[in-house]
Amino acid sequence: MSCGQADTAPRDGADAAGMWRPAPVTDATEPSEVVADAPDAAWRDVAADNLLIMELADGGRVAIELAPDFAPVHVANIRALARSGWWNGAAIYRVQDNYVVQWGANESDQPLPEGVVKAPPAEYHRPLQGLAARPLGYPDSYAPLAGYAGGWPIGYDPEAGQAWLAHCYGMVGVGRGLSPDTGTGGELYAVIGHAPRHLDRNIATVGRVLTGMEHLAARARGTEALGFYKDEAQHIPIARVTLAADLPEGRRPAYQVMRTDSEAFAAYVTGRANRGGDFFDVPAGGVDLCNALVPTRETKD
Amino acid sequence: MSCGQADTAPRDGADAAGMWRPAPVTDATEPSEVVADAPDAAWRDVAADNLLIMELADGGRVAIELAPDFAPVHVANIRALARSGWWNGAAIYRVQDNYVVQWGANESDQPLPEGVVKAPPAEYHRPLQGLAARPLGYPDSYAPLAGYAGGWPIGYDPEAGQAWLAHCYGMVGVGRGLSPDTGTGGELYAVIGHAPRHLDRNIATVGRVLTGMEHLAARARGTEALGFYKDEAQHIPIARVTLAADLPEGRRPAYQVMRTDSEAFAAYVTGRANRGGDFFDVPAGGVDLCNALVPTRETKD
Repeated sequence: MSCGQADTAPRDGADAAGMWRPAPVTDATEPSEVVADAPDAAWRDVAADNLLIMELADGGRVAIELAPDFAPVHVANIRALARSGWWNGAAIYRVQDNYVVQWGANESDQPLPEGVVKAPPAEYHRPLQGLAARPLGYPDSYAPLAGYAGGWPIGYDPEAGQAWLAHCYGMVGVGRGLSPDTGTGGELYAVIGHAPRHLDRNIATVGRVLTGMEHLAARARGTEALGFYKDEAQHIPIARVTLAADLPEGRRPAYQVMRTDSEAFAAYVTGRANRGGDFFDVPAGGVDLCNALVPTRETKD
Repeated sequence: MSCGQADTAPRDGADAAGMWRPAPVTDATEPSEVVADAPDAAWRDVAADNLLIMELADGGRVAIELAPDFAPVHVANIRALARSGWWNGAAIYRVQDNYVVQWGANESDQPLPEGVVKAPPAEYHRPLQGLAARPLGYPDSYAPLAGYAGGWPIGYDPEAGQAWLAHCYGMVGVGRGLSPDTGTGGELYAVIGHAPRHLDRNIATVGRVLTGMEHLAARARGTEALGFYKDEAQHIPIARVTLAADLPEGRRPAYQVMRTDSEAFAAYVTGRANRGGDFFDVPAGGVDLCNALVPTRETKD
């Protein structure tokens, strides 16, 4: 009797009662070594028009990869907002411990520019078809299957034929009001604590912070409800947000994300699930989706 | 065919293939309401000799409940270290994004005081017997069962008869060198990101931050390997660490933790697993152990 993940049902781990048990591997390659030794073919480029560069007034830079395959209308809005200078002079106004940091401006502050869809559809999940989803290989408490597609962490449901981005650390989503509001993309948040997976399928998730989390997560927490700052004087100003494609080619940062259908990535997940080396005595034999973040690297600064 | 958690095997959720599927509840009471309405009998006191108060030089106060049921020798060391003033004038010297903040001093800086065991046993797990463990009720990718005992988040293995504290957000552990070093307790860390459950069973976990995470998590990240600060000038000084029992009764802070064997706690977990209310469209039907942190409250400041 096997349990858990179809296609990767950890049969070796299931005991007679059908309870999933971790099945540790004692000689797994350390994940940092897997990443260092991965061949170039194991990496894919982040397209310049999917790369958002946020420069904070105090000098911190945050690079975000956008996910148009999951939220095409919201992502198109975000590109249009960046091009219109929407966030230039905006601010981080909310930092809620173990949850999110949130920034931007909304339509009550300034009118939406041309080309921005005022009421995007609820891009909270998408068809599984067309995604080359690969399962994590270990149980998940939020989705029938957890896994990856195209470099993104996902939950998915083969029976319903649906997939959605998972709210792992550093994932970026669209601030919205109560339904039916879906948010325009003018206010964004990034996850700064334990993955709030209960947000999955409830909000448009549009991307991931590639570098610069230290400039977001290390902020003083807001003291009002939900972590909003009490005074505008506490807001953290944003100098500008630019799409990399709109920077001169010589000045564009460039990043890569590991291909989640590569052998290197499979070895990376196994390594994350079975930490050994000098420090660890007991490899876990399993890993949470959001404790196996897809590796990234900067290829040009 | 049922899968997953013995005693709480989510039978209702398993489909014909035995794959666990979340089984959302659409009218679960919101967790904040459960906590607000919980009867006094649903709360237990934090004993004054298990309550460590860390005052940072810049004014932040962090309250930590110690877990002698899980790491008695390390916890006894920590009490003795506090009484000797070990951390007075020590510092936070490491802040690694999405991982830990670490503080203290070690024996190369100052000699261990009397009464501190220099080489404690490896208190990395304990017998399940004697703990009134209750399962989370949803799958976990690190342990045969995830759940709670005495107000603590745990992984456990009924077959092996073992239990261990889980490295959820805010949990506190003992910095150590390579095995066989187990750490004295003089250097401690708190989890500030997605739960690094791969540390479970590999290190002595000694407690949990009850209040004050904002004074730990909101720190600039260290730029050296593993998040160590490059210069001592960046260290964040600690004014003093005191055991509440050693403060005059009139000046002792007091906290309570929800009883994890209470009906209120069961309703809280269900609420965390099925967020609805005004904001959420899709209750998840499941929750991660570390996304259902045991509620705490301050009863006296």
